[in-house]
Parts: sequence; structure tokens; C-alpha cells
Amino acid sequence: MPASGQAVGNGSGDAPAGLEGVVVAHTGIGDVRGLEGFYHYRQYDAIELNRRRSLEDVWHLLFRGHLPDQAELAEFRREIAGHRELPDDLIAFLEMIARTEPYDPMTALRTAISFVAQRSGFRSWLDITPDELYDNALQLSAQTPVLIAALHRLRAGHRPVRPDPELPAAANFLYMFSGEKPDDQRAWALERYLIATIDHGFNNSTFTARVIASTGADIGAAVTGAIGALSGPLHGGAPARVLEMLDDIGSPDKAEPWVRAAVGRGERIMGFGHRVYKGKDPRSELLREVAETMGGPTADFAIAVEDTIVRVLGEEKPGRHLNANVEFYGGVVMDACGISRQEFTPTFASSRVIGWCTHVLEQVSGNRLIRPAARYDGQAPPQPVPAA
Amino acid sequence: MPASGQAVGNGSGDAPAGLEGVVVAHTGIGDVRGLEGFYHYRQYDAIELNRRRSLEDVWHLLFRGHLPDQAELAEFRREIAGHRELPDDLIAFLEMIARTEPYDPMTALRTAISFVAQRSGFRSWLDITPDELYDNALQLSAQTPVLIAALHRLRAGHRPVRPDPELPAAANFLYMFSGEKPDDQRAWALERYLIATIDHGFNNSTFTARVIASTGADIGAAVTGAIGALSGPLHGGAPARVLEMLDDIGSPDKAEPWVRAAVGRGERIMGFGHRVYKGKDPRSELLREVAETMGGPTADFAIAVEDTIVRVLGEEKPGRHLNANVEFYGGVVMDACGISRQEFTPTFASSRVIGWCTHVLEQVSGNRLIRPAARYDGQAPPQPVPAA
Repeated sequence: MPASGQAVGNGSGDAPAGLEGVVVAHTGIGDVRGLEGFYHYRQYDAIELNRRRSLEDVWHLLFRGHLPDQAELAEFRREIAGHRELPDDLIAFLEMIARTEPYDPMTALRTAISFVAQRSGFRSWLDITPDELYDNALQLSAQTPVLIAALHRLRAGHRPVRPDPELPAAANFLYMFSGEKPDDQRAWALERYLIATIDHGFNNSTFTARVIASTGADIGAAVTGAIGALSGPLHGGAPARVLEMLDDIGSPDKAEPWVRAAVGRGERIMGFGHRVYKGKDPRSELLREVAETMGGPTADFAIAVEDTIVRVLGEEKPGRHLNANVEFYGGVVMDACGISRQEFTPTFASSRVIGWCTHVLEQVSGNRLIRPAARYDGQAPPQPVPAA
Repeated sequence: MPASGQAVGNGSGDAPAGLEGVVVAHTGIGDVRGLEGFYHYRQYDAIELNRRRSLEDVWHLLFRGHLPDQAELAEFRREIAGHRELPDDLIAFLEMIARTEPYDPMTALRTAISFVAQRSGFRSWLDITPDELYDNALQLSAQTPVLIAALHRLRAGHRPVRPDPELPAAANFLYMFSGEKPDDQRAWALERYLIATIDHGFNNSTFTARVIASTGADIGAAVTGAIGALSGPLHGGAPARVLEMLDDIGSPDKAEPWVRAAVGRGERIMGFGHRVYKGKDPRSELLREVAETMGGPTADFAIAVEDTIVRVLGEEKPGRHLNANVEFYGGVVMDACGISRQEFTPTFASSRVIGWCTHVLEQVSGNRLIRPAARYDGQAPPQPVPAA
């Protein structure tokens, strides 16, 4: 069997492995400047937006291209609320998925989104108007948090909580999990996490959504594929492991020997280091502030060990600049909001879906089918085919 | 709102739009040499393989890296047959999808595959052994045709036909649709179509599967995404339109005025032309022979009009080399095998899934997370964020 898959990027004319640094599209949605520790949504610093505006404001900025005024925001909130209700037959379908063993929340969400697109009659964007596609996008991004919460409750044997049309998106998400109106601080904290994670360059799941959309497939196909991509541990699938690590460390004084031992065993330290940010991850800095404001045992512990871990990693892996990344404080903030660990990646999906849909809308506006090439490196053909 | 998505490939250092010609991986699975009218699976001419070997032989070649001997083939057929049975609870799930309005067979298949992966306990390939991943791949590629046939029957209000473990894959596929053992010629013809369409370079759905798999996601996520990609009309979603066109032409003598009028209106002629093959499409040549062998009204008509269409296109669009592509005779052969038009793209998926799974197995053998870059071309950040 020929060797393959290993050597990409060594031959002349080949793209680097993983397409790292290869510009595959122009975008007006946003960008990441890793060396500056800066990322933006359209023309605004994403952190400044996060400090000053609501999730719906930023969602409108991405979907419509500008921040809403009061009237636009009110209308946008009405549109979102109108898309949140789940019909009874859909709940019966979700119940069937939720009762199936084994269960994984991201797999269940993938199946649910795929079905919602069928049931809602989503079609190829080549066959519908831009307004219809926009409406599909708004429905998917409004309904994804509702599906996540409904699956979670059905899995636990409870009826889903119907969304409250009066609540903003982040508060509504927490409400649908517990059936109780969340306190303002939790809703505020979760909103900061959700805004921070809507979009982040041409990450794998965003690229997946655009590759699929480029075939003319319905936006449900693109988002279903993106959820599958986000379920991979190398992309979105690891935030719970940060809290497992904190559990394992146990107390602040044990952080230093724990990290040295883990590095000695060649293990990666969960929640530290980023391929693009070589200094601080601006999302992590923001979410650390949120964790400080909230307090609580996990947040206090995480803050206490972060500095130790960074210092020890600096000594053990000099030149690597391993700082806390968004997974570290993302997990801490979600935990402080009362979200269970197995719902961390779905919660990430509930905001990133806004980014995916924005990218699909952009992709179709100047579409070209994405179809790259590969270099064959096996035995030279044609060899004679032996008789059966 | 900034202009975007249009200008890729104009800036220096950017990949061409659609990544055309950009080598994103090395592969030992196969390749397409468009200018030579040649494609191959591993070291063998795919057409010669098709003339001399069975679908299971070629499937084994791709999955295991070599053509099987008699004992290996018998064992491989047993493994495939063992994966075909659908448990009762899965049939209940399929029934729910099949009864939902509106209905689209590719969307239904996407949901079904996503659910099968959950129910079968597929996990990240980072967390399982290569043998377990191989088994997942074999299950998915063996079960996809069974799911397609079961959905088709449930949609029509019939019970699914249980697979016959004694039948080879192509004959079994036809048997599960109708409940009757197909005659040898139909089984032979469908097998030729299925072998011809297993793999074809780094097409969009194959790339989608590899992009998703590169995150460590389970192989079900990769195949679910690929089915979504194949559902797009610019990729796999158009074979039925060839027969609609033949219906519309009506009789051979009307082909010339019909084509001239369609070209005059600026329409694309379905089933003609290929981005890579500028001469003959070798799959189309093979399937024309199959259609000639089978005969029947549609096949005879298609053969009669092909030459006319090619000649008129040559006059109307000189230098474009628009020949019949795999969609043209693919649709004709599937029709002659008794497959309904709405099942053409799912039938294509039933063989391409073997290619997708082979590519996932290769991707994970030398994995690097696929994460390209984009060039931001919107308004320069950071602009001050206005107060809400």
C-alpha cells in the first residue's frame, strides 16, 4: 500500500499541510491578527464590541453588515423569537434521538439540525431567493440553542422548556436548560462567552460550511457538516477536558508538580497554547475578567492556577508562549453559569452557528465550487489488472 | 457591507478561486488525468478494473490496498453482508424521516447516516483503534445502500426488503428496492455504474469528508458532511435533469433545434462538458457501451441524440470540447436498471461512500488539522464601537 497523507507540503507547488496560511477566500466578516492578540467582527474590535453591545447587536452586525439602531434591534429580536418555537412533531423526533444509546450531544445535534432542514423545506440556495436563504440562516441560528436545550432535557427525562419570547438569547438559553429565569450575572457572563466565540477566522468548521455551501447545497447541509467538524477533539471537542484537568490537579499548591509531571510524560496541557495567538488570547483575557466577576470555587481555583501553569510551561517549553486559550476560561465561565460539561461543545456550537451562517451567506454571494487537487504518490498506473 | 467572496485569486499569494489546481494532499488512492481521458484507482486503470472485476474486488482494493484473492474476497463479502442488517429501532427511525413533509431523499439519507453513527457508537478516531475505525468505515459503506432502499420503500408506504446475504452488492441494491431478484443484465449494468463512480480525484464531497475527519471527528460526521456536499446541484445533484432534458427533446429529429434554442437562451446543456476532461469522459464511454448492451427506449434515444448534441455544441461553442459526461450515461443506465430519477443522486452516494471512507482512512493515517486562511477585505478595523 503506498505511503500517503504524510508528505504534503514537501513537493514543489504543493500547499502546506493543513492549508496553513493559504488564502482560500476573501471575506468581509472578520479576521484574526494573531501576533497582535487582536480579532475583529467586520470593522470592530471583537472585544470592544463584546464589552459594549448585546449578542443580538453583534448577530445583526454579522447578518446585516451593520450594528442595528433601536428599531432595527427590536425587529431583529422579534424575528429571532419567531423562529424559536419547536413544533410538536419535531419534539417527538428529538425524543427518539435523546432516548437512543449510546448518546452524544454533538452527534444528536447533528442529526437534529439535518432533520430540521428537511422538515423546514430548506432547498438549494440556487433555487430560492436571497431573502429565503437569509430566513433559513436566521431560523438555524435562532433554533440551534433551542434544539440543544431540548435534547438535554429530553435526555434527562424532562419535557423541554418552551423559549420565552421576552428573554434575550443568552438568558433564554439558560432558561431553557433549567426552566428558571437566570440571574442577571449568569446571563451577562454567558452572553460574553457566546459573543466571544461567534467567529474566528477560517477555522475548520467555518471552512467546512463554505466548502459544502459551494456545491449549491441547502444551508442545513452546510451547518450539519460544520457541527460534525466542531465535534472533532482537535477543533471544538475539548473544553470539558480543562475542567477535568482542574479536578485532577485538585488544589493550587499541586499545580506546579502536576504540570511538570504531565509535561514529562509528553502530554499536552489542556486549555493552553494556540496556533495563531502566540501572545495572549484576547478571548481568554476577557473571559478571565468575567470569571473574576463571577467568582465561585472553580473560577477562583482556575484563576489561582493559571499563572502557575503559564510560568511552569514557560520553563518547561521555552519559546512556545503557551498562554491560557479560550477553552480554559470558556470552560470556567460555562461551568460558573451552571452548564454541564457535556454541554460545553454544544454551547460553543450555539454561538458559532451564527458565524457559519454568515459565512454561507457570504460564500453564495460570489460562489465558485471548491474543488482542490491532490498529488498521487502511489505505484504508477496503469498496471495490468490480474484476472479475478 | 463590504464586497467579498468575489475577488479571490486576484491578490498576490492567494489561492485561485475554488482552490482549482491547488495540491492540498498526497494520496495513494487514485487520480484523474483529464487531458489523457484517464483515471485510476490505486495502480489500475479504473475502466480496465471495471471491465474485469466486481464491485467488491474494487472496494477491497481501495480499503485494503490490493485486489483480493478468492479467500480474501469470500471473507470480505461475509464482512459486508454482516454489516447490512438494519435493527428494528433503526427502521422505526427511518419511517419517521420518510413520513415527514417535505421529503428529499438526500436530506433523509444525511439524517439517517448521522443517526446510524450515533446508534452504532462511532467515536472520534483519536479514541479508537485503526481496526475499529476500519470496521466503522466498512459498516457505513455496506449500510448506505440499505438505508437508501429502506427510505425509498418506507416513503412509498412499503416495508423495507431485508438484504439477501447471498447477493453481491449491486444485485442486492436492486433487490432491496423492488423485492425481486434482478436479472443478470441489470445487476451487471448497475455494478458498472457503481464501480465507475466510487472515486474521482479531490472532488468537493471527498474533500469535505477529509476536512471534517481532520478534526478527529468520527467517520459518521465526515460521511454526513459529504452527503450534504453531494446533494448540491453543482456537485452531485443533477443527474435526473439529463432525463428531463431527453423528455423535453422528445424525439431524435428535434435534438438539433432544441439544443440551438437552449444555447441561444444561454442555458447549460445537462450532461455535457466536464471541468477536467476536455476530451472524452472515460466513464461516459464505458456507460454508453453498457447502455448499448441494455437497449430500451431511453437508452436508444440517448445514444441517438448524443452525437447530434455533441456536433451542435461543437458548432455553437467552438473550442469548448463539450462531450457527454458521466451524468449523461449514468442517468441513462440507472433508468434502464429501473431506478427512479429521484434516487439517482442517492445511488451515486451509495458507491461514492466507498471513496469517502477510503479517503478518511488515508487522512487519519497522516493527519494534520485542515485550517486555511482568508484575506479580510472589509472596512479597516478597529473603528470605534458606537453606544447601543
